[in-house]
Amino acid sequence: MIRVAVDAMGGDRGPEEIVTGALDARSDDVVPLLVGPAGLDTHGLELIEAPDVIAMDEKPTEAVRAKPNSSLVTACRAVGAGRAQAVVSAGNTGAMLAACLLELRRLPGVRRPAIAVTIPSRTGASVLLDSGANADARPEDLLQFAHMGAVFAEEILDVPNPEIRLLSIGEEPEKGNQLTLEAHALLAESDLNFRGNTEGRDLLRGGADVVVTDGFTGNVALKLLEGTIKNLLDAFREEITATTRGKLGGLLIRPAARRLRERLDPDTYGGAYLLGLRGLAVIAHGNSSQRAIANAVRLAARGVDHDVVGRLAERLGNTVLKSGPSTTPTPT
Amino acid sequence: MIRVAVDAMGGDRGPEEIVTGALDARSDDVVPLLVGPAGLDTHGLELIEAPDVIAMDEKPTEAVRAKPNSSLVTACRAVGAGRAQAVVSAGNTGAMLAACLLELRRLPGVRRPAIAVTIPSRTGASVLLDSGANADARPEDLLQFAHMGAVFAEEILDVPNPEIRLLSIGEEPEKGNQLTLEAHALLAESDLNFRGNTEGRDLLRGGADVVVTDGFTGNVALKLLEGTIKNLLDAFREEITATTRGKLGGLLIRPAARRLRERLDPDTYGGAYLLGLRGLAVIAHGNSSQRAIANAVRLAARGVDHDVVGRLAERLGNTVLKSGPSTTPTPT
Repeated sequence: MIRVAVDAMGGDRGPEEIVTGALDARSDDVVPLLVGPAGLDTHGLELIEAPDVIAMDEKPTEAVRAKPNSSLVTACRAVGAGRAQAVVSAGNTGAMLAACLLELRRLPGVRRPAIAVTIPSRTGASVLLDSGANADARPEDLLQFAHMGAVFAEEILDVPNPEIRLLSIGEEPEKGNQLTLEAHALLAESDLNFRGNTEGRDLLRGGADVVVTDGFTGNVALKLLEGTIKNLLDAFREEITATTRGKLGGLLIRPAARRLRERLDPDTYGGAYLLGLRGLAVIAHGNSSQRAIANAVRLAARGVDHDVVGRLAERLGNTVLKSGPSTTPTPT
Repeated sequence: MIRVAVDAMGGDRGPEEIVTGALDARSDDVVPLLVGPAGLDTHGLELIEAPDVIAMDEKPTEAVRAKPNSSLVTACRAVGAGRAQAVVSAGNTGAMLAACLLELRRLPGVRRPAIAVTIPSRTGASVLLDSGANADARPEDLLQFAHMGAVFAEEILDVPNPEIRLLSIGEEPEKGNQLTLEAHALLAESDLNFRGNTEGRDLLRGGADVVVTDGFTGNVALKLLEGTIKNLLDAFREEITATTRGKLGGLLIRPAARRLRERLDPDTYGGAYLLGLRGLAVIAHGNSSQRAIANAVRLAARGVDHDVVGRLAERLGNTVLKSGPSTTPTPT
């Protein structure tokens, strides 16, 4: 039985969406625990009381420090204290990162945690990390991200011996910036199944199981991917509905459009792992629907079931890393 | 009368595509000069002889040094020597950058040239720079790119007082990596119409006339944008043609799909400016069609007509830049 603490107050759509999503994920194996204020309608799920709320636009580090009894921090603490085995929040991403660093702490040897996002590429799912936990990274961080991504791909995407690629500006090893050139050398020396660089054009096409990048580039890339898909489909709808002929055609292709949207819908994956911590944390989209929350809770439970944290600890512990002393990153 | 040197041997489709494209761009005001080997069928256009060719996969700096009589280097030299006022090549981008630095040289005070690409955003064209001239940049480079982009938007996109934004990972000024945080401060202090950060999701939606970024992020973003558009439209076609109903709908929406493709077609813009040099250079896509080459030649002529280089020299000369001594960048 896996207990997942769910921040009932995070996200843009209000607690009812989250409560019902958590409820949908409940099964014989998965028990969601809601974290929120007394009096919250939990539809019968267990409640961990937390009177305060961290808003989406609050400054992460300050908010986490000022509100130890917020639903977000309390949910993370539930994992640190062993009351739950994983935490899910659709709240303030920076605050989630800060709260996880405080309440769950990093795995030994991990310099910086990374956000691992599943990309619905055409040839199958792949994982992009870091998608924005840290804006600046060193080459040895990228090597750690690659190991984290490999564990994610093996355990969550069911890919044995996953192919790792480095996001850069050309396939040749000598293409890149200072960071990727040095990271390329570290990755090539490692025991990972490293296949060289990949370019932005291949992110949606697929071709790598794990795409490694720094959090700045990863975050720009992820938002660009999401925004381009949305804007392109919107523009297409505009063009189609501009004529009567197009409108009729639009009716006929509606099922195809729905299939495409489902294939690309981030709600299918529910959320992103925050990897490199002593506990399992899932960050859901701020705009998560009931369905997305249910999938985020299932994703968290799957991570516990597959012992992602234990596998990461083992893997990163065994890996000789040329990293300096670990520093505490400042979430933004 | 504007004379544009056109590298007849660059690009993936062979010289005939380029020669006919150049021919299409010929007008009372625009005279294309082809640069290529003796015996090339120029369809009556003037030929500047250049016996050698630089291949797409040659190492840029070495190739430019080893082949001073290649069509690419000779075309750049034609501008340096005053025989033409602009150069267009669909060849090796890195070699084009190296040849331009050698034959055209940088404008006084310019640390690094930038590639300025027009993005067909939904609210109108915007310019993204640097799209890949230099993989690493300093904050003061980004400030220079912003000034270059402003001149481009004013002269080429016809936008008075263009809005400048910095590509980052959140709209708040405190979101970003070390580079963008410092660049944000420089931009905010400048006399530019700086409107703060923009995110990847807004690149295709529009909202800024000029989007400033380093060449690594810009190149990843540009390729991601192109690849996502292509992969998404391909995936849509797959879904539509999977059923008879969809196929019929597909026939009906064909004109709408064509309009969308045209709106997004990079061939419409023909190419990207390489800005910051003492002459006007346009880099066309390697896969440029006849139409793309014609548009690239027109784009180059438009830049000469609007004295983009003179405007840049004036603007960058007048701007107090906190830059160190200018260094010669190594194209990759």
